[in-house]
Amino acid sequence: MSSKFNIVSLIRKKRDGEVLSKEEIRFLIDSYTADEVPDYQISSFLMAAYLNGLSDEESAALTESMLYSGIIVDLSGVPGKKVDKHSTGGVGDKLSLILAPIVASAGVPVPMISGRGLGHTGGTLDKLESIPGFTVDVDLARYKEILEKQNLVLVGQTEEIAPADKRLYALRDVTATVESIPLIAGSIMSKKLAEGIDALVLDVKFGSGAFMKTEQDATKLAQALVAIGEQFNKKTIAYLTSMKQPLGYKIGNWFEIEESIEVLKGEGPEDVTSLSHLLSGTMIYLGDKASSVQEGIEISKQQIENGQAFQKWIDIVKEQGGDPSCIKNPKKYPVAKFEFELKSPRDGYISELDAFEIGTASVELGAGRKVKEDQVDAQAGIILKKKVGDKISKGETILTAYTNKPTTIEPATEQLYSAVSISDTKPEKELMVTKVIDKKGVQDFRL
Amino acid sequence: MSSKFNIVSLIRKKRDGEVLSKEEIRFLIDSYTADEVPDYQISSFLMAAYLNGLSDEESAALTESMLYSGIIVDLSGVPGKKVDKHSTGGVGDKLSLILAPIVASAGVPVPMISGRGLGHTGGTLDKLESIPGFTVDVDLARYKEILEKQNLVLVGQTEEIAPADKRLYALRDVTATVESIPLIAGSIMSKKLAEGIDALVLDVKFGSGAFMKTEQDATKLAQALVAIGEQFNKKTIAYLTSMKQPLGYKIGNWFEIEESIEVLKGEGPEDVTSLSHLLSGTMIYLGDKASSVQEGIEISKQQIENGQAFQKWIDIVKEQGGDPSCIKNPKKYPVAKFEFELKSPRDGYISELDAFEIGTASVELGAGRKVKEDQVDAQAGIILKKKVGDKISKGETILTAYTNKPTTIEPATEQLYSAVSISDTKPEKELMVTKVIDKKGVQDFRL
Repeated sequence: MSSKFNIVSLIRKKRDGEVLSKEEIRFLIDSYTADEVPDYQISSFLMAAYLNGLSDEESAALTESMLYSGIIVDLSGVPGKKVDKHSTGGVGDKLSLILAPIVASAGVPVPMISGRGLGHTGGTLDKLESIPGFTVDVDLARYKEILEKQNLVLVGQTEEIAPADKRLYALRDVTATVESIPLIAGSIMSKKLAEGIDALVLDVKFGSGAFMKTEQDATKLAQALVAIGEQFNKKTIAYLTSMKQPLGYKIGNWFEIEESIEVLKGEGPEDVTSLSHLLSGTMIYLGDKASSVQEGIEISKQQIENGQAFQKWIDIVKEQGGDPSCIKNPKKYPVAKFEFELKSPRDGYISELDAFEIGTASVELGAGRKVKEDQVDAQAGIILKKKVGDKISKGETILTAYTNKPTTIEPATEQLYSAVSISDTKPEKELMVTKVIDKKGVQDFRL
Repeated sequence: MSSKFNIVSLIRKKRDGEVLSKEEIRFLIDSYTADEVPDYQISSFLMAAYLNGLSDEESAALTESMLYSGIIVDLSGVPGKKVDKHSTGGVGDKLSLILAPIVASAGVPVPMISGRGLGHTGGTLDKLESIPGFTVDVDLARYKEILEKQNLVLVGQTEEIAPADKRLYALRDVTATVESIPLIAGSIMSKKLAEGIDALVLDVKFGSGAFMKTEQDATKLAQALVAIGEQFNKKTIAYLTSMKQPLGYKIGNWFEIEESIEVLKGEGPEDVTSLSHLLSGTMIYLGDKASSVQEGIEISKQQIENGQAFQKWIDIVKEQGGDPSCIKNPKKYPVAKFEFELKSPRDGYISELDAFEIGTASVELGAGRKVKEDQVDAQAGIILKKKVGDKISKGETILTAYTNKPTTIEPATEQLYSAVSISDTKPEKELMVTKVIDKKGVQDFRL
């Protein structure tokens, strides 16, 4: 074997805490993608990288190698600055479904490649597929065609996009090397950069329902993501947002489509609505359709008031094969066979609705996958009746859970009870957004 | 898959620096041996274990799992306490070839399973095979038969002995996880314990020609080895010995047989002879044929003086199919086609003969393998004319190198020159043995 570098030496280098050169990282990833290096060597490298970290330069080189393992979509034919949003994942996080039509209707092209549910968190693709007929699998020609026509496209990752990331991600999943900030950052950014975007808004979540449990880790991840974005000359703004309790009131694939329709009609809950406007306002600003984020937020609000955002939602559903009648009239949608209510054991205030526990319960009910091969149930999920800070009386309903699998009711109930805490005094209101991170650094932010 | 434990959780636990239970370690190794866990998960675990370490209990559990992956030879039919020696490997280290016949002739059964050359170090099996006809591949029935008849057997690892170690070792070799003290200790001890021994003497080397470069690391390894031995109720005594310069004067497969014959005839160099007596004396003591190590050393010396050790050497060579005529008359042995001398560039004292460089040069000359598939050349090697501390004049020969591959002469010469340092003043004599480690702990020792 005549190789530029010796793989064992590269693993040893990272094991001993040294920094690999750009060429060495590239060699490692290229050889892996070309099937010249076995999984067992890469997994050993990944564990060494997990424990000893990667420098900003190594992280950028890793991202670049994964990015160039596939194609970078050429969207130069689509006029305007293309802007996307990425969330690190949460429970009840249906923001993509709301801001994508808002931003597209405001004239900024949104080429959005999303993922499926992972662990206790939901996935945009699974939610979109709960709309009868909606397809997220399109080829590249069709991807561009939809974007040109609608200023918006909502699809899944194709084989051509960052194939090295796909393989590495699958390997990390089974070798306990997922929760590494540089590896996560490289994985996210290689896919986003391949979309052909000009700018990116990041929603980096922290709290029990997020992958980053602490604000500190989430800040590090946001910084790593912004650093990579800027190294590739893409304007990148990240917000740190709380995922201690679920976002909004509805959790589950169709339920989240339903709640996003409410927001797009101007009838949604306050938390989802205001966070949507912040993110879509930032996208409109990065797309050069507003001179500030604040102006972007005003435009975002207008797009809901004037009905154009909701119309864009109907148009994209039709364009991608979905049935718009259930969007226009969500009450038509079939309901799960079984439902049960969680009642409060006492008077007080809701002091905690643990997003991780609620997300895990919704997976149990059928809204997510326990193993890769599982089918998700569009109807399964949870509707909260109360949120943190709300007053509740003994016997009053905290939430209603829906499933088509009656055997899940018992374990889900147990999990849901452990998710809820009730206190005698009203808890202090917590911030939904705490920080903004861009190339200038980390700044406090209050929403 | 219905498993007792989740493999990814076990990897995560070690990754996060937690301690695995005996059952968890056993599950991991058993599942791997049963082909239920892929290489890429084990390599990730090994890297986590490398970087976060293993506790004494984890190390013992690992050893036990590897030990019980194969058979433990039942030597209860052979009377007496069975004692073996293990060296962590060096350059010119032919001690096994000397002490095995000494100890066996003194009435202590020696069931010795050895390895092949590794990296820059030689291997007992390769040396034995330089004797025409000598076979190291025997089945278990024959292994016991030889031991019963000769009180000695010198063979290679069979498939039945610690197969999990064999697989793990091969994986560690290609994933940069070899140089981990608990992993090395587990690998060594699982094989030694499987031999059916009652006690063990360990020669743990430090210095450039050893795998442990520092005395500190060698001490840790010795402690780990002794701890495992004692946990399995085998009396274990380890000596820390220097491998800064090669042991004795001769390096190379046949050359080392030759020098071991010199020692067994009472005509060997001082360093090899005195270290042989220390180790064989300790084995004789552990085999209950002497009441102290000192008495064991006296017996060891007697066995050379009365010719019984040399006779045992001739007997075992015959027993295992070797030609005893070249043992009786080593001058008969054919010589390599090419030889060249390294001359001193100036007057002075030899202050360094770097064992790693000399070992690597001898591999280059053909005495070892660069890749697994290489054949070793029995005739290739190096004969030192001087050792550290010796006076030398300009133009005087430092060593002679032998090879059958003339293309190796240039690179070997270069390497050999870089191995030698000459100083104006006589260097201080260094100790050959610095510490003894047993269940009572670490004690200074001077030889």
